Amino acid sequence: MATNVTQCIYCEDDGGSLLYRDALLRVVLTDEPFTGFCRVIWNEHITEFSDLLKEERYHCVDVLSVTEMILREILMPIKINIASLGNVTPHLHWHVIPRFADDTHFPQPIWGVAQRLTQARRLPAQFGDQFAVTMNAKMKEDNQK
Amino acid sequence: MATNVTQCIYCEDDGGSLLYRDALLRVVLTDEPFTGFCRVIWNEHITEFSDLLKEERYHCVDVLSVTEMILREILMPIKINIASLGNVTPHLHWHVIPRFADDTHFPQPIWGVAQRLTQARRLPAQFGDQFAVTMNAKMKEDNQK
Repeated sequence: MATNVTQCIYCEDDGGSLLYRDALLRVVLTDEPFTGFCRVIWNEHITEFSDLLKEERYHCVDVLSVTEMILREILMPIKINIASLGNVTPHLHWHVIPRFADDTHFPQPIWGVAQRLTQARRLPAQFGDQFAVTMNAKMKEDNQK
Repeated sequence: MATNVTQCIYCEDDGGSLLYRDALLRVVLTDEPFTGFCRVIWNEHITEFSDLLKEERYHCVDVLSVTEMILREILMPIKINIASLGNVTPHLHWHVIPRFADDTHFPQPIWGVAQRLTQARRLPAQFGDQFAVTMNAKMKEDNQK
């Protein structure tokens, strides 16, 4: 059962600029200072990845994987970082972070010590639309397999 | 095809104390100063999660999920952190980190600024055996579903 938890930012709000949503989860573009930093946020207030049922787990990682793939195609980062932490907000969400050799923290994790001062790249003007169209197409294609 | 990449620590070595291994991946206990910090390491030198085929992806997250579940059962952490970074070692591996309210960094990510000085907890004496037995049983159970 979906429970709305008071004072949970991911129960109260989308958590970013919506790129994709279905019955179980959503993908948002965050306003973090890293180019194309997205989050895959489970709609229901669940704490740990291992709390998901098998079908939910598979759906979650299908979307994670496609999100990563789209970010690679559009932004051509040197690496993708994925993380589910939730120490402050224990509502299942995955950070999907394109990394660039010249970003502020590379090769450190973005939570580590900054290595240099650089501006985040500007996203392509059609980033949101391109993401949404590709995600919908890939999820449809995936479901037909 | 599995390729052995020179100077990749996860091609050259298990990467920790082996808890579980199958044809596709292994789970190791690391020597990081966080109680029960494990890694799920893909055997083949693959860089990104989205490079996996669907069946591989599902197997990977089944093992991730069971690893998390076992760590929760044995260690009762306040939270589990999962991350696939690989900026320094771009060979697919997942950090699975039990977090405790009094660990050195909580609620910060372990890559952030330390919050206090504390010793990692001592693992139960039978931790490795208990992990291996439970993992094998759960994977077998899972495959029969």
